[in-house]
Amino acid sequence: MKLIEIAEFLNGEVVGDSDMEITGLAKIESAQSGELTFLANQKYSKYLEETNASAIIVSKTQESVKLPHIKVDDPYFAFLKALELLHPPEIPDIKGIHSTAVIADSASIGEKVSIGAFVYVGENVKIGDETIIYPNCVVLDNVSIGKKSILFPNVSIRESCQIGSNTIIHNGTVIGSDGFGFAPKGESYDKIPQLGKVVIGDNVEIGANCTIDRATLGETIIKDGCKIDNLVQIAHNVIIEENTVIVAQAGISGSTKVGKHVTIAGQVGIVGHVKIGDNAILAAKAGISKDVPEGEIWFGYPALPLMKQKKIDVSLRHLPELLKKVSRLEKIIIKLQERLNK
Amino acid sequence: MKLIEIAEFLNGEVVGDSDMEITGLAKIESAQSGELTFLANQKYSKYLEETNASAIIVSKTQESVKLPHIKVDDPYFAFLKALELLHPPEIPDIKGIHSTAVIADSASIGEKVSIGAFVYVGENVKIGDETIIYPNCVVLDNVSIGKKSILFPNVSIRESCQIGSNTIIHNGTVIGSDGFGFAPKGESYDKIPQLGKVVIGDNVEIGANCTIDRATLGETIIKDGCKIDNLVQIAHNVIIEENTVIVAQAGISGSTKVGKHVTIAGQVGIVGHVKIGDNAILAAKAGISKDVPEGEIWFGYPALPLMKQKKIDVSLRHLPELLKKVSRLEKIIIKLQERLNK
Amino acid sequence: MKLIEIAEFLNGEVVGDSDMEITGLAKIESAQSGELTFLANQKYSKYLEETNASAIIVSKTQESVKLPHIKVDDPYFAFLKALELLHPPEIPDIKGIHSTAVIADSASIGEKVSIGAFVYVGENVKIGDETIIYPNCVVLDNVSIGKKSILFPNVSIRESCQIGSNTIIHNGTVIGSDGFGFAPKGESYDKIPQLGKVVIGDNVEIGANCTIDRATLGETIIKDGCKIDNLVQIAHNVIIEENTVIVAQAGISGSTKVGKHVTIAGQVGIVGHVKIGDNAILAAKAGISKDVPEGEIWFGYPALPLMKQKKIDVSLRHLPELLKKVSRLEKIIIKLQERLNK
Repeated sequence: MKLIEIAEFLNGEVVGDSDMEITGLAKIESAQSGELTFLANQKYSKYLEETNASAIIVSKTQESVKLPHIKVDDPYFAFLKALELLHPPEIPDIKGIHSTAVIADSASIGEKVSIGAFVYVGENVKIGDETIIYPNCVVLDNVSIGKKSILFPNVSIRESCQIGSNTIIHNGTVIGSDGFGFAPKGESYDKIPQLGKVVIGDNVEIGANCTIDRATLGETIIKDGCKIDNLVQIAHNVIIEENTVIVAQAGISGSTKVGKHVTIAGQVGIVGHVKIGDNAILAAKAGISKDVPEGEIWFGYPALPLMKQKKIDVSLRHLPELLKKVSRLEKIIIKLQERLNK
Repeated sequence: MKLIEIAEFLNGEVVGDSDMEITGLAKIESAQSGELTFLANQKYSKYLEETNASAIIVSKTQESVKLPHIKVDDPYFAFLKALELLHPPEIPDIKGIHSTAVIADSASIGEKVSIGAFVYVGENVKIGDETIIYPNCVVLDNVSIGKKSILFPNVSIRESCQIGSNTIIHNGTVIGSDGFGFAPKGESYDKIPQLGKVVIGDNVEIGANCTIDRATLGETIIKDGCKIDNLVQIAHNVIIEENTVIVAQAGISGSTKVGKHVTIAGQVGIVGHVKIGDNAILAAKAGISKDVPEGEIWFGYPALPLMKQKKIDVSLRHLPELLKKVSRLEKIIIKLQERLNK
Repeated sequence: MKLIEIAEFLNGEVVGDSDMEITGLAKIESAQSGELTFLANQKYSKYLEETNASAIIVSKTQESVKLPHIKVDDPYFAFLKALELLHPPEIPDIKGIHSTAVIADSASIGEKVSIGAFVYVGENVKIGDETIIYPNCVVLDNVSIGKKSILFPNVSIRESCQIGSNTIIHNGTVIGSDGFGFAPKGESYDKIPQLGKVVIGDNVEIGANCTIDRATLGETIIKDGCKIDNLVQIAHNVIIEENTVIVAQAGISGSTKVGKHVTIAGQVGIVGHVKIGDNAILAAKAGISKDVPEGEIWFGYPALPLMKQKKIDVSLRHLPELLKKVSRLEKIIIKLQERLNK
């Protein structure tokens, strides 16, 4: 691809040889001849001279660039967009339906579906066109999966769950395990049957080794465009609205409702039966025990609105000296009292 | 089933057409004609008029119920019991032993056992009657599993571990991985051989993608009736007594002993070599660094008894203003001193 | 093995019948005749009389030992070393390459490699001599694995990742899942292609159900000798230097650099793009939001150097009474002021 073609895709301006052929993309410290790189962080500006790259994406205000370059507003973001253009993700081709896969006769398999070795597909499963299921996945009875979705190796989906189109599920993730529901019976517990399912929308991405439980009754729902990282736990009957992002090792307890475009950072925990408003941000490791209003940022354990929590955290660092100061003041006050009482 | 039959099972009293046929159960907002629903939370009382359900379970004190109804003490609990009665859990039937399963000749397989596709069963494994092992599970040498237990897809059990009867293990869970034990050797570490095993009792339920490590020597033990949620970590040589409940993403470090009927909430962490007394409750995200006496509720990080911790948490919210107040008082005191010293 | 042979291996001194045959090792309370045990914790000294063991490892200062014994500096460590000697870990033999394994013709498989049932090995994979891959593992295209490494059941390794020699990966762990990278596009998100890989060194151990993401560009790196427990999350582009230990359920965010011989305790979370210095210790559940200098111990959420944090935690317990005291002092001061103002 020519430098000018990339620049046009990025809405950038070329300075230098715009017809130069770009063979690939690389980081500034490791780029080779023919490759395009970028400079976003001035920590790396020493490489401007040293890099072997043939061209570079820089910010509009970058000075002393000798290489042919593309000027943009945000070089890192532009570089990521160029990555998408030059390196569409190439995942291994598993070449159609493997002879070892066990697929029920009643399953309905779309056009150009790939199903890897040792995949089990149960009764009445529906799989849409161009979906890829990697080796060792298990898809139990009555599951439906949309078009162009990907299940990476060792994913398992329990019966009756629904997965949308263009949705990616990474290795080892479990969809539709039983909700955690038990009724006390003396000292022991009776299992509450978990009769619902999980419904996942389109353009969702779910990381590796996550667990998403089926509803007790009805549906656990993850709507279109949600992005979920690794080792995330989503309990029965949780509902997550569109385009919400959940970072690794976060957990959401039963029946909680999470709004649209929420950000839930790593290792956050949310109790059951609360509501997280649209566009809220829950900072890393927050322990959320109540409703969070729309657009607010919460932090801490137990979590509070960010500004309140930050004030407390700053105050806390003065607490040991405060204790000493109050003891000192107390002595002075007692002496003052004594003097006045004389 | 007739309404009266359900009412008798629930120890409830019918008001209205007691011979009515009930075809299923559903939530009040989605129930259809023929279905029985319930009202537990008054937030939903507006649906009393609107619901399409044919009958409803209500509390003894509920007023203005026009539908045929069953009066009980606890409508939610009664509804869950009715669920058990009308909808015994129906999991996919994998129909005997699949032709692709690899089962060692030395394994002993009980009556009416189901073993799914691509299951590996090692040497000298014993599997009790009516146990179900779903596709892609791995059961290594010398494991024993009792009767009527269920392993969902992708469960793996390392050699020599023991699983009881009526025990359910959800997808992706690992039983018997090596304990995390290393002896320092200069800057690096030598592996300490992990020679023990895991012993899991009867009527235990273990969620998806959990990890339960084998003992260094002896046994990691989970006794009868314990209920464990998803993504829980239980380290080598931990002992958990009967009927303890562990919620998602909690972790218990090596050699800790957990009593009977303890509740360990989500994302709790417990250090190694401590004792958690019977009936203790460890609140969500607590970081437990010492023994917790029987029956106590602990919370916080580092955790303290709940009442102490709550007092501290409430005080904390006043800390920023306390700092200001003490500064103000200090100035007054200094002035008072100056005046007295004049 | 004779008692004297074990003593020589442990650099210990035998007292009693040094030619005695030792048949095994066991804990003091369960040891049988012929077995060697140890006494490290005086809590167990009552068993000195009662044990059925034939010999015992004790500290040089231990008194009243009637059994033949080996005197050492550290009895527990000596016992662990004896374990290594007498019980080299015996994992199930899966006897060569199983007939059901699917191995691409282009894969290169070393000498004496074991590959279990239902293992999938993709194109151009390289597996070194004497490596063992247990049933139901998936190794996608272009992966390389060194010599004498072990993949336990249900491990999956995405394309192009590299695993060293003598490295152990426990059940269910995922290597090379996509990094969690998305570029905002209005209210929704575009996936940033994850083009890098994961490179894991020699003598590394990784626990069960961990997730280690591939780099966006370049490599996520785990160097020689690192030991990682269960359910640990390591994000894209993280670099971990030699001999670092990471305990269960810890998580490290993208592009963070962790030094050599660091200890990261259970449930720790580290934000992205920070540096953890060599030999640092991050205590359990710490939330690390900034660089940690070499050799320091940090604790808390948000984390601080241990001594600072401990002072704060101790002060905190006095906070409720401090609030009361300041209110009391305030009243006295106001009265003093009034008296002076009269």
